[in-house]
Parts: sequence; structure tokens; C-alpha cells
Amino acid sequence: MSKLWGGRFAKNTDVMVEEFTSSISFDSRMYRQDIAGSIAHANMLAKCGIISQEDAKLIIGGLTGILADIEAGNFSFEVSLEDIHMNIEKRLTERIGPAGGRLHTARSRNDQVALDTHMYVREQVAEIGTLLFDLEQAVLDTAHRYPETIMPGYTHLQRAQPILFAHHMMAYFFMFERDFRRLGGVWESADIMPLGAGALAGTTFPIDRELVANDLKFGRIYENSIDAVSDRDYILEFLSFASILMMHLSRLSEEIILWSSTEFSFIELDDAHCTGSSIMPQKKNPDVAELVRGKTGRVFGHLMAMLTVAKGLPLAYNKDLQEDKEGLFDTIDTVKFSLTVYAAMLRGMKVNSGTMRQALKTDFSNATDMADYLVKKGLPFRQAHEVVGKCVAYCLGEQKTLTDLTLEEFKQFSPLFDDTILDAITIETCVSARNSLGGTSPAQVGQAVTVAKSIMEKQQKRLDMYTKIKL
Amino acid sequence: MSKLWGGRFAKNTDVMVEEFTSSISFDSRMYRQDIAGSIAHANMLAKCGIISQEDAKLIIGGLTGILADIEAGNFSFEVSLEDIHMNIEKRLTERIGPAGGRLHTARSRNDQVALDTHMYVREQVAEIGTLLFDLEQAVLDTAHRYPETIMPGYTHLQRAQPILFAHHMMAYFFMFERDFRRLGGVWESADIMPLGAGALAGTTFPIDRELVANDLKFGRIYENSIDAVSDRDYILEFLSFASILMMHLSRLSEEIILWSSTEFSFIELDDAHCTGSSIMPQKKNPDVAELVRGKTGRVFGHLMAMLTVAKGLPLAYNKDLQEDKEGLFDTIDTVKFSLTVYAAMLRGMKVNSGTMRQALKTDFSNATDMADYLVKKGLPFRQAHEVVGKCVAYCLGEQKTLTDLTLEEFKQFSPLFDDTILDAITIETCVSARNSLGGTSPAQVGQAVTVAKSIMEKQQKRLDMYTKIKL
Amino acid sequence: MSKLWGGRFAKNTDVMVEEFTSSISFDSRMYRQDIAGSIAHANMLAKCGIISQEDAKLIIGGLTGILADIEAGNFSFEVSLEDIHMNIEKRLTERIGPAGGRLHTARSRNDQVALDTHMYVREQVAEIGTLLFDLEQAVLDTAHRYPETIMPGYTHLQRAQPILFAHHMMAYFFMFERDFRRLGGVWESADIMPLGAGALAGTTFPIDRELVANDLKFGRIYENSIDAVSDRDYILEFLSFASILMMHLSRLSEEIILWSSTEFSFIELDDAHCTGSSIMPQKKNPDVAELVRGKTGRVFGHLMAMLTVAKGLPLAYNKDLQEDKEGLFDTIDTVKFSLTVYAAMLRGMKVNSGTMRQALKTDFSNATDMADYLVKKGLPFRQAHEVVGKCVAYCLGEQKTLTDLTLEEFKQFSPLFDDTILDAITIETCVSARNSLGGTSPAQVGQAVTVAKSIMEKQQKRLDMYTKIKL
Amino acid sequence: MSKLWGGRFAKNTDVMVEEFTSSISFDSRMYRQDIAGSIAHANMLAKCGIISQEDAKLIIGGLTGILADIEAGNFSFEVSLEDIHMNIEKRLTERIGPAGGRLHTARSRNDQVALDTHMYVREQVAEIGTLLFDLEQAVLDTAHRYPETIMPGYTHLQRAQPILFAHHMMAYFFMFERDFRRLGGVWESADIMPLGAGALAGTTFPIDRELVANDLKFGRIYENSIDAVSDRDYILEFLSFASILMMHLSRLSEEIILWSSTEFSFIELDDAHCTGSSIMPQKKNPDVAELVRGKTGRVFGHLMAMLTVAKGLPLAYNKDLQEDKEGLFDTIDTVKFSLTVYAAMLRGMKVNSGTMRQALKTDFSNATDMADYLVKKGLPFRQAHEVVGKCVAYCLGEQKTLTDLTLEEFKQFSPLFDDTILDAITIETCVSARNSLGGTSPAQVGQAVTVAKSIMEKQQKRLDMYTKIKL
Repeated sequence: MSKLWGGRFAKNTDVMVEEFTSSISFDSRMYRQDIAGSIAHANMLAKCGIISQEDAKLIIGGLTGILADIEAGNFSFEVSLEDIHMNIEKRLTERIGPAGGRLHTARSRNDQVALDTHMYVREQVAEIGTLLFDLEQAVLDTAHRYPETIMPGYTHLQRAQPILFAHHMMAYFFMFERDFRRLGGVWESADIMPLGAGALAGTTFPIDRELVANDLKFGRIYENSIDAVSDRDYILEFLSFASILMMHLSRLSEEIILWSSTEFSFIELDDAHCTGSSIMPQKKNPDVAELVRGKTGRVFGHLMAMLTVAKGLPLAYNKDLQEDKEGLFDTIDTVKFSLTVYAAMLRGMKVNSGTMRQALKTDFSNATDMADYLVKKGLPFRQAHEVVGKCVAYCLGEQKTLTDLTLEEFKQFSPLFDDTILDAITIETCVSARNSLGGTSPAQVGQAVTVAKSIMEKQQKRLDMYTKIKL
Repeated sequence: MSKLWGGRFAKNTDVMVEEFTSSISFDSRMYRQDIAGSIAHANMLAKCGIISQEDAKLIIGGLTGILADIEAGNFSFEVSLEDIHMNIEKRLTERIGPAGGRLHTARSRNDQVALDTHMYVREQVAEIGTLLFDLEQAVLDTAHRYPETIMPGYTHLQRAQPILFAHHMMAYFFMFERDFRRLGGVWESADIMPLGAGALAGTTFPIDRELVANDLKFGRIYENSIDAVSDRDYILEFLSFASILMMHLSRLSEEIILWSSTEFSFIELDDAHCTGSSIMPQKKNPDVAELVRGKTGRVFGHLMAMLTVAKGLPLAYNKDLQEDKEGLFDTIDTVKFSLTVYAAMLRGMKVNSGTMRQALKTDFSNATDMADYLVKKGLPFRQAHEVVGKCVAYCLGEQKTLTDLTLEEFKQFSPLFDDTILDAITIETCVSARNSLGGTSPAQVGQAVTVAKSIMEKQQKRLDMYTKIKL
Repeated sequence: MSKLWGGRFAKNTDVMVEEFTSSISFDSRMYRQDIAGSIAHANMLAKCGIISQEDAKLIIGGLTGILADIEAGNFSFEVSLEDIHMNIEKRLTERIGPAGGRLHTARSRNDQVALDTHMYVREQVAEIGTLLFDLEQAVLDTAHRYPETIMPGYTHLQRAQPILFAHHMMAYFFMFERDFRRLGGVWESADIMPLGAGALAGTTFPIDRELVANDLKFGRIYENSIDAVSDRDYILEFLSFASILMMHLSRLSEEIILWSSTEFSFIELDDAHCTGSSIMPQKKNPDVAELVRGKTGRVFGHLMAMLTVAKGLPLAYNKDLQEDKEGLFDTIDTVKFSLTVYAAMLRGMKVNSGTMRQALKTDFSNATDMADYLVKKGLPFRQAHEVVGKCVAYCLGEQKTLTDLTLEEFKQFSPLFDDTILDAITIETCVSARNSLGGTSPAQVGQAVTVAKSIMEKQQKRLDMYTKIKL
Repeated sequence: MSKLWGGRFAKNTDVMVEEFTSSISFDSRMYRQDIAGSIAHANMLAKCGIISQEDAKLIIGGLTGILADIEAGNFSFEVSLEDIHMNIEKRLTERIGPAGGRLHTARSRNDQVALDTHMYVREQVAEIGTLLFDLEQAVLDTAHRYPETIMPGYTHLQRAQPILFAHHMMAYFFMFERDFRRLGGVWESADIMPLGAGALAGTTFPIDRELVANDLKFGRIYENSIDAVSDRDYILEFLSFASILMMHLSRLSEEIILWSSTEFSFIELDDAHCTGSSIMPQKKNPDVAELVRGKTGRVFGHLMAMLTVAKGLPLAYNKDLQEDKEGLFDTIDTVKFSLTVYAAMLRGMKVNSGTMRQALKTDFSNATDMADYLVKKGLPFRQAHEVVGKCVAYCLGEQKTLTDLTLEEFKQFSPLFDDTILDAITIETCVSARNSLGGTSPAQVGQAVTVAKSIMEKQQKRLDMYTKIKL
């Protein structure tokens, strides 16, 4: 098939090279953006008198027809036409004749593909924002379903101090809240209109870029044409956002997997979110959490790939940059799937509050409280720490816990202990006493939920703004 | 040496393990932050009645003395004391006695190290912002020194269209401007106060976190104590920022290296920014640009390292997170060095305007303008492209350039050509005709510089804000 | 659709979860391996008396039929059946009844998928080895086509010393030779038979793993069943191999792109391996080289992804490991395409020997030879270097090259110069004088080619061995 | 300070650039290699008549003196002299006069630094091999200390089947064995002698590279001089080896951390390998395992960094390649520390066999055996799986385990059950019945240990060979 750029060439492209350099297998995903961008471009060309109104009408009619064809499944993409842009332009000319050849006036594929990708990323920001918002809601709901459940808090996977389960959940809320903010950064970087940059230097036609930007609801316009066609920051920023988000999900996954183990038995996932074994009939595996944890690597890989691709490229466009899309698209799919499935899984998750509570009876999570008790009696903290450390060593030897000790035993370690000590180190006291701002006491967790809700109200407004650009 | 946490242990730490787990070799860099944080903490403890005013005074006096010792080089850090926090606390107790043991009341190393690192990153944001600002200025200056220089613009490293050298430079300005904006995102993520989170769950003492936050000029406070000690988003966000920035510098480096080659000869770097060869006496190598390009990999590596470290960690603090600092610190050093040396190198760079101009005489950079010429005469762009493509093929065969053709030759390719064609495709016309918004015409580049200056005014205000937190 | 492992479950899998956890969209690629492995397994089960000969015959007949169906395109894979294993087993039972249910005796999907992937990787090693061998041949052919062409050799992209073009090409030969050796390492790691490991602990049936290994032509058998199902080293080793190979290709790509630029004009690629521009009619872009350079990032990303996936996983199989395949498959495709297209591109590449030769006339590539000249006259090298450095500085000021200097001028720099100096620094002398082992003289390059050919003879034997396992 | 390459330059290097481009802060680590290489070079130059015997004697004496100075701490490295090579050469000339200037005859820093790094890597291969060998031994010892301990085997962190603890340990042995093999690959790639390649093209002096190679005990010599100075494959191969090794250690770390948790309580680490908390007196944290898991990310990062550095570099040497060393050195240190500390930690680890055994009493790890039981009675496996799945569901409802069921209850699920069922599913039977090659039965594990020992005998021979090159 003859190329739209073939004038200068004596020989056809090798078929294998066509296949290797063609991007149609993945960039066809942006057909809506490509057509919307072309319609805006054609409208502008006509308003600026660069093409006639009749030609514009023909072009827009043709493009609208092609859009319908694609959505109806009546459009076959040709590898030899390289990409979505050439596939559509070629078909346009077949449908409407020579006027189709005027569409590419004052435009290059370099700024065209940049436009499509910016539009695509903006739409995905809106969709991902909505899913992230729903996951935040699922986290809040989960915290809300178990308001009084106490669990061991861990550092180094060793029991540290008792905490509210709701407090633990809220830690994830605030991670996702930061993700939401970073997603806003992606929006800022994507919401810049590149069309009109031409191949790299602008165009000799008297175009009106602001018209196009308004039509396509862009907030800003690239101030430099070379930058417009070579900038992939918004993709890298998206991949960075996605990597950090997936990292958060990988941490939650690790916990869900731990908690589902026989050893922990802190939660029970819904059968609908688990799978079994082909050989071991008893198995119920937390596959979804494992897979999300695994897919974290995939997203990190895409980030690393794109950084490497961009490294050391001279300006302006180089074909290497075609490698920006597959990793981006796969990351978008992975993130959307992960967010959706996680919101569902959290909503279906049953927490075994009793098991968590029971666990705390046999450990030393209240040791810090015992040290704090001594500090409040006047001992410097560092000495109190030493005293309690010795108490713990004694208990381990005797196979007791701290609450098993008699007052006499306590007094062997410090004369400051009196009969208030046992009340001071019950699990409930440990939790409710951590009433500093952001602490695990019920009052503080309640306050954090209030803050969270007001954050989500602001997020809703941003989502409304994002969603408005939907074509 | 006995550990400050040794009460529970029957056996000493293995010396090799001490060395392996100790972080003092790199976290000593944060001594100013650690001491400032401790002073703010002690002040707050006293104001809240948790320790006495006398103890606070002793503690603060002791810490101030230690700060002076460190800055005078009179402080030797001990590996066996693990980290900067324990080194300072131990010394404090040696200096002021048991009161030193009260400093760690209502605090854990987990929130303490988080505080130090947040403060350190904030300061570095301010310093890096200042250097980035200066690099932007150097880019503007360089553009300004060569206002009329025309060079070949490239895509695929093939000559594409003539552009102003200043336009090319300005593309980098807008990249750095986005970097500056992303640096602001790092600030947002770093400017949250973690102290008071304790080990993970808050504290039982009636602390006042807002007091500490105000003292240390933090804009926000972590709302969740678990999140406060396990969040490393601000480090990842910094590493993402740095990776994208270094990627930009690697692109500029590639160009500087290309332009310095005998083949291009577009620029001459100052001797002060080049080095020679141990064997080849004629060599003058653009080492700085090469090294910055190389160091890009280093920064990508640190990002990948930190993402991997954080992947799959259960809450809250795990020792793995100690790996957050060396990559962070090395990235900070690398970025600061790269920004500084680049600003100097650009300022010392001589542009060979004549060579650039000469290059354009023998290529086909004006082919697009010839196609645009035909479009303006009424030919659909796609056909005009075809006509010019054939012209180029003809010229290649005849070893001519487009401006070598006679009107008769032109007319063989299209009857639309007339005697205005040669004027329409001079290099000067090609440049000045690209007068669309963001294009390479002198008017547009002038406009971009104006925009750039107004951006820098806003940046200056942010820098002022960043710098205010300096202790 | 009911699951083959559903006995223990009260509720069906969520459809979204099915889609998320299913691997059939990509592991169907291993259908041949899966069926061959199952046939070997069934044969063994019968020989060991674990199932009857009749059942084995039924099973094998059924599997053979399914293979034919798949190859004829008459098999539709079901997402709800999760993976290639379950899809085939389910169909088998539909075809042959209850006997189909006996195939999975003494086997788990964990060892089954490991078997399939090992077999698949072994086959790909054979195919990639063949392509790599052909690329080596193309490199040799290219060197051979231009036996006397002299070009500037570069360090830091600055002209360093004149070299034979063939010598430059041969540098790539030796890189690919190391890649071939590393590919052999992948073979070693892949050629271990995992079947019989069961889920993780072996099986209670009296199986004969050596029988299966012989049938499937494996060199070794996993000695530990847990290792057998959790080992992904061979995939990581393949991805490391591929990353280094692509890195080599990225270096060659960079050179091809440079050499194709107007500034260098050292080569001309065949039209068949280039593409044009949608807007600039004159463009002929070295897309293939750029794309291979870009795809390097993609492969690095897959390596990083898989390392991250495997990091921190407890034994034995975890669902995260399902993420091993897509990156592997994509890397295989990328590598095969890159090798194929590169061999063709090199074969179609025209070298402009005259341009290369001309370039050397105007530079200082012979400066080292001038220093060596002085050393041979008795000057210590470090002083000779200094003398020539000053000569070069003088020439730059006078806009001369070294060969433009008169004997008098030479003598101003050192009395050791005499009238033999000009002969000593001609380009031909520079090249032929570098006659140390591995140097650029024609004699040495000839010797290197001889070595290369004998290496390829040994490689051919390995390829024969690899290819024998083909099913 | 004047540069050894300064003849051509009119201006001094900027001090900041000196600092930025200097490598002396890290490459001074290779001083022994640099001096040994220079001595071999000087010897060869004299034997080939390129320098006089007297000069060689002076040079070698001077170098020997410098070596003694460095080892005695009496040598101060200068940043302005850039690197280890120039530092030593400059001092040499100060010590012995002009003869020092003859050392660099027929040599460039490009081949010199390549030589040093090859030698350094070879030595480190020998040292790391020795440590890896010792870790293998520690694994074997640990398995040997607990020959009869049975633990739950896991997939998806869900209890799967009972296994011998020794079997689990042996899985790691075989991972490390593959690492040892890959380390051998690094040796192959490092054991090639680059000296004599000069800057990139060989040298005009009649050198004898084989003499140098023999002196320095190299197995092979680079056949192509350009390849010799630009090859970094051996570093990448080392980083790949290290990444996979650290990945293995990260998996073991994850398990050690899990097993140390209160929930598992499968092991007790020695106090010497744990640390405590500054605030929680009860804490005993498995820091070493966590830190090794964390350092995995660091090593992955160095691999990614070096791949990125090398990507897209034209031949031959570019300054970017100076970035090869810090990541390499840090990886070497990290790997050596991790191997050492792990061997010690395993040797100090106490296994709670009773707790492991107890755990198995309350789970369904024997479900597969129950299915196998039915298969041996004639039921197709897929149906047996279904029957047992229903049994498990029944038990979960009744809060029983499989061994709690009465024969009558069994028979409700299948008439094939008889009174042999309970014996068939005891934990001991489950383990000893998995007697297939590589399975978990005591006999098979014993066999695997035998194989392991014979592997180690072969490894010992390789280690002997590696160690012989030690200077």
C-alpha cells in the first residue's frame, strides 16, 4: 500500500519493518481522541480561512462517519498505514475525495499524536480519579464497619502496640489521598494543548491555537513548539503516580495475605475474591491481593522503561518515543483493574475481631505503656525503658505476660509500681490513652474520619472538573 | 557499648551486625535537623508540663553544645550507637546527666527519623529550587546572547526545519519550568509534621503537636500516626522529580555532545568545562555533559531501588526503610552538582552561528515550506507533500538543493510554482513565517521569553517561601 | 462455569476477579508445550501403573485431537477456566469422559506451568540463538564488504584515531559473541525438568521423573520440589541476557542514527528500512534504529518488573509469579524482531567510504602517532604528549591540521622532528601501524575475523544441540 | 595543579568541574590492581625493547614504593589529578624523574582502567564465591541440625502440605548453587585482558599482550581493541548475578521475618542478630533480615543504573562509563556483607520444632493425601479433588479437622473410604509418602543432601582456581 509520505522514496518499506515500526495495534485505542482532535482542527482551519467551509463540512462529516464505523466494528485497521492517524486520514480521503488531503494542513503527526495522547491521559485521569475516590470510600466504610475492633499494631512485623483496626485502615486512606493529589499533578502536566506545533517549529499557516484549545477544553497551550512535540513528562509523571499508588496497594496486599494466613486468621476474604488449587482441595488463596502485589513490579517496569527510552534523546521527536504508549496503556489498565477489584475486596472482607483481640492477650504490646507509667511517676524515660525491658526478659523466662505479674513481682523491678499498674496496661487503656493528635484513640480516629470526609468533598469538586472535559 | 534499648536482651549485638545495621555513616548528615527537632520537642514537653522547665533548659543547653561540637569537628560518631539519634542522645546524657534520659519521652526513633528527613528534604527543595531557577536564568541568558542565530531543527536526528537557536534553548526552559512545578509537589509531600506519632500509634502523654509544627514551620501535621512513620512518598516523589529532571539534562547533554563533535561543530565549550586525554594530545572532551548524561542512570537507579524497597512492606515501620536515605542523599548531591555545573557550562558556551547557518544551505529543511507554498496556491496538503517529495528525490539525484532549481525545473513538478517560490523558501522566511503561537519566528520566541520571565517572577515568590523555613 | 477446584467454595468467583486473575490471554501461547508435557506425563503414569494403558491411550488421543483443533483455529479459550492448563483439561474431559479426570494425577498446576515455561524458554533459546548467529554473520559480511574503508574512531564522540570500518564492525561481533555465551547460560538454567514436584512437596504416587525428562529431552531434573515450583531464575537470566543484548543493539543504533545524519553522512540506509514524515517531504528517517534503541528501555523495564515481582516472596508458589510471563513473552518478541530487522538493515546498508576518508583529512586523529614518533626518538611519552598538545593548539590558532605544518614549524616544538614526520602520520600509516594484537591494522582485523569464524563454528554445534529438543 | 594532558588547553579546568569529573574518591580502591598492572606493563615494555631495562627497574621500584606508601597510609590522593592512574603516575615521576613519563608509553587510561576493573572484579568473584560457598554450608548445617522437624509447607502463604524443614532449607541450597554457577559466568566475562587496546585502536609500539596476560594470570585477551575499552558486560553480568542472589536472600528474609513473628513463632533468632526499640522495651526485631530484604532494592537499582548508563552510547569510551564503578563497588560490599551476616544468622537460629508440629494439627495440609487415597482406590483425580473439597467445607462448618471425622462421616462423602483412611493422612505419612525424586520424604531429602555435597566438591575446585589469580 502506498505511503502518504512516499514521494521521496525509491523503494517500498520492507514488510517486516512495517510491522516493526507500525503502532496501529495499540494506538487504535485513541481513535476517539484522534477524530475529536481532527474535527477541532478542521473547524479551526475553516474559521481561519485556511480551508473552505465546504471542505471542513466534508471532512467533519467524513470523520463522524468513520467514528461510527469504528464504534460499530466496521473499520479494519491496516498495519501498512502505520498508525491511527494515517489509517483514519486514508479512509477519510477514500470517503470524501481530495478534500481529505486538506485535513493535514498546518499539522504534523508529531503534534497530532501528542494531542491524542494528552487527551487520552486527561480522560484517564478522570476515570482513575473516580476509582481512587471509590477506593477511599471503601476504606472508610471498612473502618466504619469495625469501629471498636482492636488489633496488634506491628513494627518489624513484631507486635508493637495495640491499635484500632479502624486506625490501621485510615493509614491507607491518607496514602490514597496523597495519590489523589499526585494525580492532580498529572492532570496539570497533561492539560496543555500541543496542536499547532507542527513537526517541531510551528506552522506557516495563520492558525488559531486558542480556538482549538477551547474546543477541546484545554487549560493551557504549549508555549514552545519543540517542547510540545518532544515532551513526555506527563506520561512519566503518570507512571510515577501509578508506581507509588501500586506500592501502596502492594503494602495493603501484603497485609491482606498475612491476615488471611492460618497463623494470623485476622480476616476472611469473600469466596468471590479467592481461588482454589488444582491439586490441594482445601486451598482458598488470596489471589487478588497476590496479583496486585505482583503487578506492582509491572508498573515499576513501565516507569523504568519510559525513563530509559527518554534518556539521552536529542530534540525534537525521535521514533523511540513511540515506545511511550504500550507501557502507558498497560499501566492504565492495571491501575484501573487494581483499584476496582480492591474496592470490592475490601467491601467483601470479614474481620475476625475476636481473633485479633485474643492475640493481644498473650503478647507484650503494652510494654510501652508500662514504661510511660513509670515516667509519669517521675522516672526518666530511658531508665523506665530499661526497667520494663528487664520485666519482659523475666516474663519470657517464666512464660508469663506482663499482666500475669503480681504487684510483688512488679516491685522487684521498680518501687514506683503500685496497684494502679494493671489498670494502666489493659489493652483498652493502651488504645484510648494514645489520644495525641493522629493517635489511635477512638476520639482521634473519629477526628481523622471527619478530616477524611472533608477532604473527599474537595476531591469531588476536582473530579467534577476533570469529568467535564469528557468528549 | 551498652545499647539504649538493651534491657530485654541477654546477649550483645554481633559487631558485624552493628556495622551492617548502623546508619550513622550517612544519617549524621542530618545532625542539624535532629538537634532542631529535639529542641522543639523538649520545649513542647516543658510547655505541656511533661518535663520540668529546668530539665528542658538543661536539655536544650546540652543540645546546643553538641551542635557546636559537631560543627567544630569535635564530635566522634560511634557505629555501635547505630544512628544520629542515639549518638546525640547518649552524648546528651553524658553531658547533662539523667535529664537527658527524659528527652525521649513521648517520642520514638520512628517519628524522630521521619521528622529529621522531612526537614532535610524541605531544606533541599529550597536549595535545589534556587539552583534550578539559576539554570533557567542561564538558559534565558544563552538564548538572549544569540537572538538571530538560525540552526537546523531536527527530528529523528535528520534535518527537519530551520529554527532559531533561541527557540531551541527555550524548549529547555519550559522543561525546567515543569520540573520546578514538580519540585513544588515534593514540597507539599515533605511539609507534613510527623513528630508525635510515636512508634506507630501516638503517645499517652498530653503532647501538643501543633506547637512543634509551628516551631519548625511546618504547614501540616500527619493526621494518622501509622502513616506518619511509614510514609516515604515524599522521598519517592523527590526521586521521581529528580529522574525527570536528569532525563531533561541528559537530552541537553546529548545535544551538547553532538554539537561539540567535529561533524556538527555548532558550539565550543569553554576549556574550563572540558578535559583531555592521557594519550591523545589533541582531545578536548565534553566530559561534563557526558557525566551528567551518565549520572541520569544513577538517579533512575535510586528511584528504582526505593520503589523496590517499599514494595510489599506491611505497616508500620520496617528496617528496610532505613535504605531510604543513601539513595536520597546521593540523588540530592547529584542533582545539585548537575544543576550548578550546567548553569556554568551554558554560560561559558560559544555558539558558532556561522557554522549553523552554513549547514542549512546544503539541506532540504525548507521542503515543508515548499509544500505549504503549494497548499496556499490551492493544492491539498497531501498532494503538495507528494509533489515536493518528488522534487527532493530529483534534487538528490542531481546533487542539488531546492534553491538550486530553476523555475522551469520547479514547473516540471507542478504548474503552481511561479517566480515567488525562491523567496518563499529562504531560510529567513522559513523561520519568520512560523509565526503561529509557540512557533520559531522571532516574534513568537520573544513572546515566549516574556512568558518565561513572568513565570520566573512567580517562582521567585515560591523560593522565598521555601527559604523561610531555613533553621 | 464451575471451577475444577470448586469443591471447598460456597460462592462463585466474581467475574471481574476471573478476568483479573485469568492468564489464558497470554499463556495460551504455550499450548504446544502444555500438550506435549501432558502426553509425556500420561505415558509415564501408565508405564508406572498409576493409570491404565487404556486411559493413557484415551488421554493421548484426546490431547492430540485438541492440539489439532487449536492449530486449526477450532478451539475457543475460556477466561473463566483461568489458564491454558484448565482450558485443555476441561476440553479433554468433555471429549473422552472421566478418564480425562485422571490426567492430573500426581501433578499440580504449579509444576505443570513450570514445565511449560521451561520448555517454551528452551525453544526460544534455540530460535534466538539462530537469529543471533545470523546477525553475527551479517556483521562479518558488512565488515567484509568494506575491507579497506578507513573512518575516524571516536572517544567522547570526539575524533580520536583513524580505524578500519571493519575493525569497528568487529567490535560488535565480539559483543554478540558474549551474548551468545550468556544465552547458553539461560539454556543451562532452563534445561531442568520440574514436573513431579507437585504443588510443592513431590507426590505420593510412584512416578518416574527420569522417564518424563528423557521424553522431553531435558538434561537435568530439579533435585528439590519446592525449588522446582518457585524458581524463576531462568526467566530472570533470560531477561538479563536480553537487556545486555538490547544495550549492545542500542549502541549500534545510536551509531547508525549518527552516521545517517547529514552531518556525518557516513552511511545510507536502504529505503526499505526507513520511513518518511507526514509533513516534511524531504525526510528519510532511520526509524528502525531509533525504535530498537527505544525498545531497549522496554526490555530493561521487563527485567526490573520481574525482579520486583520476585523480591520478598516466601516459598513456594505465589500468584505474583503469574506476572512472569507477559514480560518474558514480550521480551522474546522484541529480541527476535530486533535481531531479524538488524541483520537485514546491516545487509542493506551502504557505507560512504569516501566521506569517511575525507573527514579524516581535516582533523587531528593522527596526534597520538605524532607523540609515538617522538617517543620512538627517545622522548618520554608524557613529554611527547605535551609537545604534540602544543602543536595542536598552534594549529587550531592557525586553522591548520598537523600535516599542513612545515618542517620548520615542527621543529619549533621539538628538535626531534625530521623529514620522516609527515610519512609517519598519514592516515594509512596510523591505521597499519596499530598492529598490536587486537589493533586496527588490516593484519590484525584479518586475524580477528579468523578467530570470529572459528567461534561461529563452535556456536553452530551448540545451535544444533539446542535445536534437537524441538518438539 | 597542571594536568598531564594539558598541552592543548589554554585555560585551566574549573575547580567544580574537577570535583565533578574526578573519580579518585572511589577508584582509589583499585590501587593494588593499578600498580600490579603498571608493573606488568613496564616489564613487558622492557622485554619488548620499548623502554630500557634501567627505566623499567626505576619504574617498578618507584611503583613498589608507592604501593608501600599507600598501604602505610602515607599517600594523599589529589582530586585535581582526577583518578587513581594519574595520581600514581604523577607521584611516580616525582619519585624517579623523567623515566616515570615513559610508563604510559603504548597505553591509555582507557585500557588501563579497564584492566584495573577486570582484575578487581576477578578478585571479588573469588571472595564472593568463598562467602557463597560458606552460606551453602550454613544452609546444609541448618538442615542437618533439624533432620526430623516437620513444618507446614505453603503456597500463597496458605498451608499446603506438610514438609520437612530440611527440605525447605535445601530449596535455598539449590538457589545458591545456581548463583554460584552464574558467578562463574561473571568470571568468564571478567577474565579477559584489555591492556594493549590503547585509547581504542591498539598501539603503534611492538608490545606483547600475551606476556602481560600471563603475568597477570588472565585466561583470554580481547580480540578487538575497541571492544576492549568499551565493554562493560562483565559489570552488568555481575550486577545481574547480584540482583538474582539478593532476590533469593530477600525471599529467605521474608520467611525469617514471618517465622519470627508472634503469629508463626517457628524460629528464634540469636539476640546477637537482632536489635531493640528506642521506645518499646519488649521489642526484638529481625533487623538483619529486614535490612537484607531492603538492600535487594539497592542492588536492583545499581543494575538499572548501569544498564541506563550504557544504553545508546556510541563506541568507544565515553565519560558516562565512569559511572560504572560506584554502583559496582557498593554492590560488592552489599553482597559480601549480606552473605556473611546470613551465614552467621542461620547458624545462630533456633528452630521451634514443636511449634511447627503443633501448627499442623489444626489445618488441612493433608487434604491432597486424602484425594490421592481416593485415586488409589480408583477414583479419577478430578473427582477425588471434588470429594475432598466438600469434606473440607464440611469440616470448616463443623470446626473440625479431617482427622476428627468418623468413618461414618467419611463415608458420607465417598463409599471408597475405609478404616485405613486415618493412617493414610497422618502428618508423618504425608511427609514420608512424598517419596518421588526431589520430594520431601526423608529418603529424598537425604539424597538431595548427597547431591549437594558432591556439587560443593566441584565448587571447591573452581574456588581454588579463582583464588590462584590473587596478586
